[in-house]
Amino acid sequence: MSLEVARERIDWARRHMPVLAALREKLEASRPFDGILIGICLHIEPKTAVLCSVLRAGGAELAITGSPGTTQDDVADTLASEGISVYGRAQDDAAAHAANIDKVMSHRPNMLLDNGADLAAIALERGVSILGGTEETTTGANRLREDLAGDVTFPILVINDSPLKAIVENQHGVGQTIVEGFMRTTNLLIPRRRFVVVGYGWCGRGVARYLKSFGGDVCAVELDAIRALEAALDGFAVRELEEALPWGDVFITVTGRPGILRREHFDTMRDGAILANAGHFSWEIELGELEPLAAGDGIERLELPNGNTLYRLARGEMLNLAGGGGNPVETMDLGLALQTMSLTRIARGAKDLIAGPQPVPDDINREVARRMLAALRA
Amino acid sequence: MSLEVARERIDWARRHMPVLAALREKLEASRPFDGILIGICLHIEPKTAVLCSVLRAGGAELAITGSPGTTQDDVADTLASEGISVYGRAQDDAAAHAANIDKVMSHRPNMLLDNGADLAAIALERGVSILGGTEETTTGANRLREDLAGDVTFPILVINDSPLKAIVENQHGVGQTIVEGFMRTTNLLIPRRRFVVVGYGWCGRGVARYLKSFGGDVCAVELDAIRALEAALDGFAVRELEEALPWGDVFITVTGRPGILRREHFDTMRDGAILANAGHFSWEIELGELEPLAAGDGIERLELPNGNTLYRLARGEMLNLAGGGGNPVETMDLGLALQTMSLTRIARGAKDLIAGPQPVPDDINREVARRMLAALRA
Amino acid sequence: MSLEVARERIDWARRHMPVLAALREKLEASRPFDGILIGICLHIEPKTAVLCSVLRAGGAELAITGSPGTTQDDVADTLASEGISVYGRAQDDAAAHAANIDKVMSHRPNMLLDNGADLAAIALERGVSILGGTEETTTGANRLREDLAGDVTFPILVINDSPLKAIVENQHGVGQTIVEGFMRTTNLLIPRRRFVVVGYGWCGRGVARYLKSFGGDVCAVELDAIRALEAALDGFAVRELEEALPWGDVFITVTGRPGILRREHFDTMRDGAILANAGHFSWEIELGELEPLAAGDGIERLELPNGNTLYRLARGEMLNLAGGGGNPVETMDLGLALQTMSLTRIARGAKDLIAGPQPVPDDINREVARRMLAALRA
Amino acid sequence: MSLEVARERIDWARRHMPVLAALREKLEASRPFDGILIGICLHIEPKTAVLCSVLRAGGAELAITGSPGTTQDDVADTLASEGISVYGRAQDDAAAHAANIDKVMSHRPNMLLDNGADLAAIALERGVSILGGTEETTTGANRLREDLAGDVTFPILVINDSPLKAIVENQHGVGQTIVEGFMRTTNLLIPRRRFVVVGYGWCGRGVARYLKSFGGDVCAVELDAIRALEAALDGFAVRELEEALPWGDVFITVTGRPGILRREHFDTMRDGAILANAGHFSWEIELGELEPLAAGDGIERLELPNGNTLYRLARGEMLNLAGGGGNPVETMDLGLALQTMSLTRIARGAKDLIAGPQPVPDDINREVARRMLAALRA
Repeated sequence: MSLEVARERIDWARRHMPVLAALREKLEASRPFDGILIGICLHIEPKTAVLCSVLRAGGAELAITGSPGTTQDDVADTLASEGISVYGRAQDDAAAHAANIDKVMSHRPNMLLDNGADLAAIALERGVSILGGTEETTTGANRLREDLAGDVTFPILVINDSPLKAIVENQHGVGQTIVEGFMRTTNLLIPRRRFVVVGYGWCGRGVARYLKSFGGDVCAVELDAIRALEAALDGFAVRELEEALPWGDVFITVTGRPGILRREHFDTMRDGAILANAGHFSWEIELGELEPLAAGDGIERLELPNGNTLYRLARGEMLNLAGGGGNPVETMDLGLALQTMSLTRIARGAKDLIAGPQPVPDDINREVARRMLAALRA
Repeated sequence: MSLEVARERIDWARRHMPVLAALREKLEASRPFDGILIGICLHIEPKTAVLCSVLRAGGAELAITGSPGTTQDDVADTLASEGISVYGRAQDDAAAHAANIDKVMSHRPNMLLDNGADLAAIALERGVSILGGTEETTTGANRLREDLAGDVTFPILVINDSPLKAIVENQHGVGQTIVEGFMRTTNLLIPRRRFVVVGYGWCGRGVARYLKSFGGDVCAVELDAIRALEAALDGFAVRELEEALPWGDVFITVTGRPGILRREHFDTMRDGAILANAGHFSWEIELGELEPLAAGDGIERLELPNGNTLYRLARGEMLNLAGGGGNPVETMDLGLALQTMSLTRIARGAKDLIAGPQPVPDDINREVARRMLAALRA
Repeated sequence: MSLEVARERIDWARRHMPVLAALREKLEASRPFDGILIGICLHIEPKTAVLCSVLRAGGAELAITGSPGTTQDDVADTLASEGISVYGRAQDDAAAHAANIDKVMSHRPNMLLDNGADLAAIALERGVSILGGTEETTTGANRLREDLAGDVTFPILVINDSPLKAIVENQHGVGQTIVEGFMRTTNLLIPRRRFVVVGYGWCGRGVARYLKSFGGDVCAVELDAIRALEAALDGFAVRELEEALPWGDVFITVTGRPGILRREHFDTMRDGAILANAGHFSWEIELGELEPLAAGDGIERLELPNGNTLYRLARGEMLNLAGGGGNPVETMDLGLALQTMSLTRIARGAKDLIAGPQPVPDDINREVARRMLAALRA
Repeated sequence: MSLEVARERIDWARRHMPVLAALREKLEASRPFDGILIGICLHIEPKTAVLCSVLRAGGAELAITGSPGTTQDDVADTLASEGISVYGRAQDDAAAHAANIDKVMSHRPNMLLDNGADLAAIALERGVSILGGTEETTTGANRLREDLAGDVTFPILVINDSPLKAIVENQHGVGQTIVEGFMRTTNLLIPRRRFVVVGYGWCGRGVARYLKSFGGDVCAVELDAIRALEAALDGFAVRELEEALPWGDVFITVTGRPGILRREHFDTMRDGAILANAGHFSWEIELGELEPLAAGDGIERLELPNGNTLYRLARGEMLNLAGGGGNPVETMDLGLALQTMSLTRIARGAKDLIAGPQPVPDDINREVARRMLAALRA
């Protein structure tokens, strides 16, 4: 029964991942992964399950573990029922995760699909021979570049640095899902509400643009003068954070940096102001000694000494993902297609790849862009 | 504990209902409902709880029942704990609802706040003496005008016919929450997806406009030539339904009429097409003999004899409300402020009101519009 | 040579008037105007020339005069060269215009296509027998309803009251051409400029919407509370005029009423503020004793005693039309199609028409809407 | 009298060039150009006149010539009347221009503000000692980099390569003025018209976006797969040129490359299709043997052998500039502020500048961005 539901959800995802579907057809014919075992560390959810079936269609054997806290047990069971070696349950803690990584490595993978460099770190430590791999996150890439600098003996293509992710996931994916997440969590409409978007990078401009398209009164806070001018020409009010504090109804941080909104800022906000974060880490909103109190599903109250109450959404985690279905299907179709083509390139022993972390080759970006475009026009 | 959570949710709603809050201050001073018992039939959820506290601040005693299927037990318990006579639980069926109506009437109310004319019908049948009342829905108003025509002995102000509802709830409220509901239910983005919006009335133009503002490729189907021209000038492709069927990825009915999408239409849709409804009743999409099969949370599969699979969202119920927090807080603030001012007018025995169903007086519409505007600008 | 240029301009208009073109085909077959002479008073410009050729294709003889100040001599010459009786030159004054009206009436027309009720007034005064006619303007309709009330012996269909004009011409036509006229006259861009749109009727909402879509910071001033709320929900700041005065960079009046911006308002505006009008008459901006001084093509300076300089565009005339090509081709295609179908209806002696001014019949509105829609989709 | 009009037009420009105005105050205090003569080659129009007065406020002597075909004689006279050495009239041909360049050089300038490298080429040929200069155009920069490579003995800062120009002028300036130019030239509205924007670079995305915001049905043609995907996510249909040819009503080229639309393309376009160009050179639309015939002000007819008629706007020159007031004031304020700060940097003998063409220093871009932002927020 539970497997049945998981299969339905996987089918729903598969149906809306046309780029992966097209790659699957190619891989079924060319079988680039015959004889190869890929060790995978990735969130175990329906979209990952679609990826797994594509890699297997290309001949790969798979051993997979998830990340602590995001594993969906019914999806894990479904993968296991199809003969994949799966390690990980919803309730895993850090220790359990370390053990899972170990179990994946015990399969002696030839290639890695990694998330946070967890697999690569062990492989390098143990001197396992690896053809190459991919790394999903910039955080993992930084670990490879910094902690493991010079030690990486095989090529690792860093998916998150692809310019396609900036376009599809950061600008449009985050922009649209932040509007959805705000409405879903608060039950409020957008028109004339005063939104302060802190940070006008790829994500921030998406958030600002889509809030405005719903009638929000949006101002952008951005330190970089050139981006700030861009925001103004795009039609947004641009303000210093200090000016924006007493003005805003809702504050959305999306800078990638810690401590953007702090106690000193809270004190000059309006009573009832709402705080949310669209950046990768919850650290952008720093509560300090304030104790968040429950105030509804996904909403917490912050009682300030000055008598005002503020509200924090989604515990400061990414508002677009918390409480929803995760990254939108299209952004995952794109990201996992980049994964698939990158792994294929490595399996074929491409000679232009050097050891260490490196961007996805330009021709792969272009090929995936072309395929996604074709899917959008089908 | 559960009461605690309900109170937090009621507080959240109250904070975002500034028009009701302003009316409360006025009613606390003028006490128009002193000595009056109001019988209420309305969804028992946090926003209704805010209304109850406002009416009581104006001196009213209350006896309330909900509608079958929408009562939130913790909110009902909270109201009861505050001394209101509450009848209704989440699991009530039609028979239980009839009994609840009876219990409310047993309090011998002087005024009614009705939903579907359930209370008014009994009052008229039994010849209860009533000062007057309000009716939330157009459906209830039609019942009063048709089934009970000529028999209504007291004034009933019909809230849903107010032009303010068309602006705030139909166009913007429904428009924005349909986008939210679609994304929440499907985990899909909007850009370049082909949406067919069937019906370009107040709701339909909101749905079309907000989908387009997110990059959707939106076409409108509208039989009325003047509205259809308006859609075209607003920048939408306008197509006959027959043309739109093989083109669309997603169909959203919002006509107010039954059987808009039927089996004969399904057969010419693309494989994988998605069906959703934004009209009041689920009857706009008529499945006929097709059996919907589970396909994820809020998603059902329809397997067609031609081999295609279609998907229906939210069982054909209003996509914006199903699975979410109900009508957005702002639209309820407006609707319940109209309720409050209408009831106040009746309590004061306004002489220009006739017996029977009638529109909310123009000056009340204008006063509520002014107050909502002031709140938006605060 | 000049005729050659006029013919090119008429051809350009004709090509973009598909509704008239389709009617022409019908009229050529049915010849409803055989044996009928139509007396016309209308601006003599290329789009009117297209109308003339359509009426003649339907069998009509024509005698035409223009309005003082808008006649284009080369177009007049072209019409004359085609055998139409044309009276009117660019330089005509009021006396010349009166004489022209007389000359048109000397042809003893059977039907009238009137503008400002100039022809109808004479016909009624002289007791000329007329089958019926049309009136282009609301001003003319008011004259018929007020000054000539009860005296009108034949049906007159009032074109400007058609709901289609509100949609096509007022909202979209005026909205888009005001943006064009502002940019053309000032050489300035729109983003972040503070526009105050005074009046949120059909025209005003078009002006506000299109300025905002170009990144303008737009606020609406509107006395009617319901329209004002609509403006807010549409995403605009709504302000009292007094608040808006020191804020705005550009003020655009579009209320239809005189003296909207007056000397007392000028004194609290910013130095350099720009004044423009999109309403029918220039009276919305009242200069009082201020003397406008030339400040570029279509721009005048107003030197205030407080030392500030304001700028008035297009002498306060409709900014969208002044200095440009007149009403956009599409809005004229619509209006002249309404004219053509209305005249055809009268020629056929429709029995449901009463004597006196009256709206265009609903079925004609719907037929024209359908035809325009078909043209937009071709 | 004519001088009077020119002064009014210069005043209008000055009032809307706040960045230059702020720089003027600084230069008046610091006098960086004392003792320096700047040779200038730039379009002689009101905005250039504002620049001249700013440079003189900083202590500079000036000798200026225009470009063939763009000199406004009344502005030239105004500059001359203020003691500037001006060479150039509206009717100048290439030979006259060469002589004018010579006359400017005869003043023995210490610095150059150049346009197309006309001054720099002579200076280098004659071995004139020059502190440094600026070059307005990318074309001029290419000439310096290619024809004169290695020979340039002084620093030349290339204004057009500044990222600020891409944002302000290319995306927003061109985007908005193309809409204006189209409406001004054709008298047509935008809704539902089918626009094909060929090229989705900085300019192209501005053109596409603003046409869409007016209700146009816009498709983008773009060879680069990543940009094309961006266009799709931005909500545009993306098509191959071949597909778009029989679909479009209006084609706008904005690629920067020659021969984009050619005879072979014309043959598959609809009868009546309109061709316009927003790229720097008219070469993007290649007529071949077709003879353009007059068809109204700024409109030409092309009669094809297949019987169809096409229309070309503005002789294929940049539609936004042809027939209008030139580049919008704001974009010139930005560009000329970059000029002014770059010349100031050179006059102060900045040691980090090398010989030869180079980008505007990053800190100047940031300073100008900050100043423009401040002006937009004033």
